[in-house]
Amino acid sequence: MQEVIITNLAEKKKHWQQPHFISLPSPRYNCNYIMKSLQCDCQHLLENIVGNKIAMNPLDPGEFRRQGHMVVDFLAKYYENIEKYPVLSQVEPGYLSKRLPSSAPQDEEPMEAILDDVHQHIFPGLTHWQSPNFFAYYQTNTSTAAILGEMLCAGFNVAGFNWVSSPAATELESLVMDWLGKMLDLPRPFLPFGNGGGVIEGNTSEAIICTLTAARDRVLRKLGHNSIAKLVVYGSDQTNCSFQKAARVVGIDPRNFRALKTTRSTLFGLSPDSLEKAIRLDINAGLIPLYLCATVGTTSCAAVDPLEPLCKVASKFSMWIHVDAAYAGASCICPEYRKFINGVEFADSFSFNAHKWLLTPLDCCCLWVKDPNALVNSLSTDPEYLKNEATESKQVIDYADWQLSLSRRFRALKLWLVLRSHGVQNLRSHIRNHCRLAKLFEELVEEDPQFEVVFPINFALVCFRIRPSGVAGMSNGHADNEHGEAWKLNEVNRLNAQLLHAINASGRVFMSHTTVGGVYVLRFAVGATLVTEKHVIMAWKVVQEHANSLLSMPASEQHSA
Amino acid sequence: MQEVIITNLAEKKKHWQQPHFISLPSPRYNCNYIMKSLQCDCQHLLENIVGNKIAMNPLDPGEFRRQGHMVVDFLAKYYENIEKYPVLSQVEPGYLSKRLPSSAPQDEEPMEAILDDVHQHIFPGLTHWQSPNFFAYYQTNTSTAAILGEMLCAGFNVAGFNWVSSPAATELESLVMDWLGKMLDLPRPFLPFGNGGGVIEGNTSEAIICTLTAARDRVLRKLGHNSIAKLVVYGSDQTNCSFQKAARVVGIDPRNFRALKTTRSTLFGLSPDSLEKAIRLDINAGLIPLYLCATVGTTSCAAVDPLEPLCKVASKFSMWIHVDAAYAGASCICPEYRKFINGVEFADSFSFNAHKWLLTPLDCCCLWVKDPNALVNSLSTDPEYLKNEATESKQVIDYADWQLSLSRRFRALKLWLVLRSHGVQNLRSHIRNHCRLAKLFEELVEEDPQFEVVFPINFALVCFRIRPSGVAGMSNGHADNEHGEAWKLNEVNRLNAQLLHAINASGRVFMSHTTVGGVYVLRFAVGATLVTEKHVIMAWKVVQEHANSLLSMPASEQHSA
Repeated sequence: MQEVIITNLAEKKKHWQQPHFISLPSPRYNCNYIMKSLQCDCQHLLENIVGNKIAMNPLDPGEFRRQGHMVVDFLAKYYENIEKYPVLSQVEPGYLSKRLPSSAPQDEEPMEAILDDVHQHIFPGLTHWQSPNFFAYYQTNTSTAAILGEMLCAGFNVAGFNWVSSPAATELESLVMDWLGKMLDLPRPFLPFGNGGGVIEGNTSEAIICTLTAARDRVLRKLGHNSIAKLVVYGSDQTNCSFQKAARVVGIDPRNFRALKTTRSTLFGLSPDSLEKAIRLDINAGLIPLYLCATVGTTSCAAVDPLEPLCKVASKFSMWIHVDAAYAGASCICPEYRKFINGVEFADSFSFNAHKWLLTPLDCCCLWVKDPNALVNSLSTDPEYLKNEATESKQVIDYADWQLSLSRRFRALKLWLVLRSHGVQNLRSHIRNHCRLAKLFEELVEEDPQFEVVFPINFALVCFRIRPSGVAGMSNGHADNEHGEAWKLNEVNRLNAQLLHAINASGRVFMSHTTVGGVYVLRFAVGATLVTEKHVIMAWKVVQEHANSLLSMPASEQHSA
Repeated sequence: MQEVIITNLAEKKKHWQQPHFISLPSPRYNCNYIMKSLQCDCQHLLENIVGNKIAMNPLDPGEFRRQGHMVVDFLAKYYENIEKYPVLSQVEPGYLSKRLPSSAPQDEEPMEAILDDVHQHIFPGLTHWQSPNFFAYYQTNTSTAAILGEMLCAGFNVAGFNWVSSPAATELESLVMDWLGKMLDLPRPFLPFGNGGGVIEGNTSEAIICTLTAARDRVLRKLGHNSIAKLVVYGSDQTNCSFQKAARVVGIDPRNFRALKTTRSTLFGLSPDSLEKAIRLDINAGLIPLYLCATVGTTSCAAVDPLEPLCKVASKFSMWIHVDAAYAGASCICPEYRKFINGVEFADSFSFNAHKWLLTPLDCCCLWVKDPNALVNSLSTDPEYLKNEATESKQVIDYADWQLSLSRRFRALKLWLVLRSHGVQNLRSHIRNHCRLAKLFEELVEEDPQFEVVFPINFALVCFRIRPSGVAGMSNGHADNEHGEAWKLNEVNRLNAQLLHAINASGRVFMSHTTVGGVYVLRFAVGATLVTEKHVIMAWKVVQEHANSLLSMPASEQHSA
């Protein structure tokens, strides 16, 4: 009987393709399964098929289970084998369009075939951010708990724009931001019992756009909209580029964006004096100081702006002060790193990315503000189709009014799972372990006279380079004047860039670079979930091998390579 | 021997908590498992533990597998039982903080306990968007394929801000947007071979903020930044509230936001005449028309703005024209619905949310632009730490320059899995099935003389209400003058609001409401993945039951309830 029905299922393919049917999963089903899930017998099933009454669905629990287990195993295997792939993808631009069809398939394809294509065609184009040999940029590390959180988020798929649309989404977000605020020992005014509050934004850009909009409107409500062209915002030349982009988006005149110069003397932290000078110059020119973005752990070299003195300056001019600790903020859950955000009590808002160093995948930027109403005043909307009693009672938060978009994912789930699945102590160990490994790498670099560590380490980033004295031809043959110095710097920079290129082309490790104060440095950031001592030691060996091979070339080849 | 080691593991807890150890998963491990995953024997394991050399990690493949399967089964069971929960959450504000601790745990907790809490404490606060009895707002439907896509996305967790950071993320996004562009039969200039291009944004707000910023800067580059206060943007009183928010964010003077009045005579579509009049008035007042947001399938009642004549007007004034088809765009993969975006060839940009009606969970807003450089000119950044050869070769797309933030999730995966796992034909059937079910509901409403369908159905949204003639006291006792008419409308609106409240409080179905042209209507949107004919029929029964109970009350109670 079963065989008959299966045959019939196949024969009836044309029926399944009628508009009545959502999906055509028959090749992936067996008869028993269909009967069980429909709670019917064979005769009933046949009648229904012929009568076009069965609508299979793309969220069938049985298929979900089967395919879900398949993908769990696929990912587990990926982590088991992750070190076998080149960390930095080695493909050429345009590789994928040569491998995949140029149009979507007309009919469904089995998940097995799709996963096979992921393996065959997507893997070569992946730069493996979860590889323990990934030391580039700042990591965005993930964890089992967080991936499970994303699964639940996509599975429930609630669009929690306001409280009533899914109360748990709002309330868990408030709760988990409160937990995290306490873990960071944030000052009381940032937390709900101090009339502040936290929200999960997608990323730092969004956090800055939202707070900048709030700050801007607070001023424009007093001075009138025409003053928008006079508003000035301040950061340093080390502030992340997303600040400049955010300022541009909210309509700050690009000429009114101040990226104040930093120097080695302050370890590339923003100097309060230079801030005050810039502000006074702007005021004298008839402009209006609006917003300061201070950074704890800059993207380039993990520099720390001195919060307390900067806040004292900015407060004199009633500016909005935002503290961007995108990378380093996570470390402040450890008491010994908390000092880096001392002074945050004088700021208006604070954000860090749990999606960088706190085992939570993109996107999870945690933002706290002292005055949520400032956000709501700028970002709230109140269309008829969203009106509801809970909102009108003013007893609830509608997080759409704290962010740019209306719809929002249930991101709190993944953060909640991460905090619970590890606990505060283990998360601290996780941070400390990476800082310890960075220290280890620093020691390895310092043992080698050809190299130098360029900046002191604050967190888990090591900036290093081949020393000028390690480069052939640096100590002779060129006049020791200013021109000669520039030539030397240029040559050393070029050699270090060559070194980085060779290291990354090996596929064995991936590091990135930056230039600070004219000096090109290699950035070695420890932050991958899977990284251990042996990976750090191996990475250093890769650096040494390539450096030795480069430095053993005749000087002429070094300089022209 | 095993027991000894397990005891030792417990005893050694203090060692595991040293900074060396990333995590303390021991309660969830057994000795065999640890030995297998470390490929060591018991003696070796003991030595390593004592020597603090084993660093367990939060991304251990074995634990990932075990917990991953657990969550797959958890979600499958959720779908099996989803109809048992009240669709609209019935909790009171603040419910969750009474049930969960006020601080994060110090130590790790097992996933079993966390999932149990999800079931016990999160479920009651969920409004079940995936329930087949969810007919509110517009859905954001999901599917097995898309959830698997999110798992892969979170698992790889690449931050694909530029091409080199993970080439596959960029290239798959270009490919899948091209597939989808073809499925929608988008005009050639929106697709790469016509020099346009597609990108996945998080949501419509972001799509509008990006294109509005591009449009604004195109004008300001010519006229100078001070002209920002003169820029005017246009939509209708039916345009989604995110447009107003976006305009505010990018610095458009709130006084220069035009929400042009629509009427029933144009079925609440924006009239080209009223647009032209408004523009000419603004120009005469010294203002500068900048941007038109035309909508296909409004949030309130699925109205359609007439694209072609609107574009003709806006083009005369060199405005940027954006077509927002957030909800209805998905239907245009069916040839019979494609007509609704006729005229899009005259627009500059077009967006729709695959996360509404195309089986893809949040967040997945698909945006196409004719001139990607307009985005790049406004949104690109070029910090040293991201410089790379691929970018400099200009052979690749760096999608960070097409969006607000720097970091971005690998969202293309879920969309790719959805398109392949279903195929074009099944996706069309999915849309058609929902439209058919909406028609069915419309027929049910129209059969009942107490009710009326208020607007013709364009897609899968039915707007209906209790007719005025169905309300007691409407036909007598009040003067038939203007005041009387207003009173009547008010009473009918109030009764329909009561009806909706009663329906939703039942927990059996969830619908929402809107007010258009002063008329309060119930919105019945068909779009849940799991919805079938029987759910629609049941929903109608729930409506009738509550209406009958309400209408059978004495008039005095009706009006005061």
